[in-house]
Amino acid sequence: MLHDATKALARGKSFAALTTLFEDGSPQTNLMWVDADDDHVLINTEVHRQKYRNLTRDPRVTVAIFDPVNPYHYVEVRGRVVGEVRGEQARAHIDQLSTKYTGGPYAMPITSERVIVKIAPERERSQ
Amino acid sequence: MLHDATKALARGKSFAALTTLFEDGSPQTNLMWVDADDDHVLINTEVHRQKYRNLTRDPRVTVAIFDPVNPYHYVEVRGRVVGEVRGEQARAHIDQLSTKYTGGPYAMPITSERVIVKIAPERERSQ
Repeated sequence: MLHDATKALARGKSFAALTTLFEDGSPQTNLMWVDADDDHVLINTEVHRQKYRNLTRDPRVTVAIFDPVNPYHYVEVRGRVVGEVRGEQARAHIDQLSTKYTGGPYAMPITSERVIVKIAPERERSQ
Repeated sequence: MLHDATKALARGKSFAALTTLFEDGSPQTNLMWVDADDDHVLINTEVHRQKYRNLTRDPRVTVAIFDPVNPYHYVEVRGRVVGEVRGEQARAHIDQLSTKYTGGPYAMPITSERVIVKIAPERERSQ
């Protein structure tokens, strides 16, 4: 279960610094939109992206979630990718995220296929 | 050499999502103040911190640098820790950073010893 404060932060207009690991073990970080269900941090990406290829090979990720209005307060969720959702549900979720951040449906081209990535927390650290 | 745009971003009131690697290879991310000299991204921390212990063991780090005013634009600098500076110079540098971000000298207690960490870029990615 995610802490309530983490869920609230992830469901607001916050950004996530998502870090995945390359095959050689070195890290890669992307700033992304973010969401949460009751038990997971949710990220929505496309299946051709490097970060997706990384996290399917090594499920160990960390997500620093912050509201740009006050980046001094953030929550780092260290955990593992434990599931994914593709298809219509992932396509609908990116529209839902876009509406949260921009006020309208997702307007960027979709190159491959959207996927919701579910991250289960192992450690949550607030600052 | 850092790209000019990266230097400008790191020298502004930007934040860095610094990711280091634990001994087991899993990642840790901290949001931090940031700076740059001509050749390196500069981070100022204390020597007792987990991130410092991590980066002295494994010098592979990545830094996503963003201005909170527009987190859609950021630069990810993947690279290696190639040097550090302690002592008076590191103490003066945290005052300089504090002045950039808050308008005044560093007012938080110093638990151990300040250290400037120098990160040499291997790949810079703008978004």
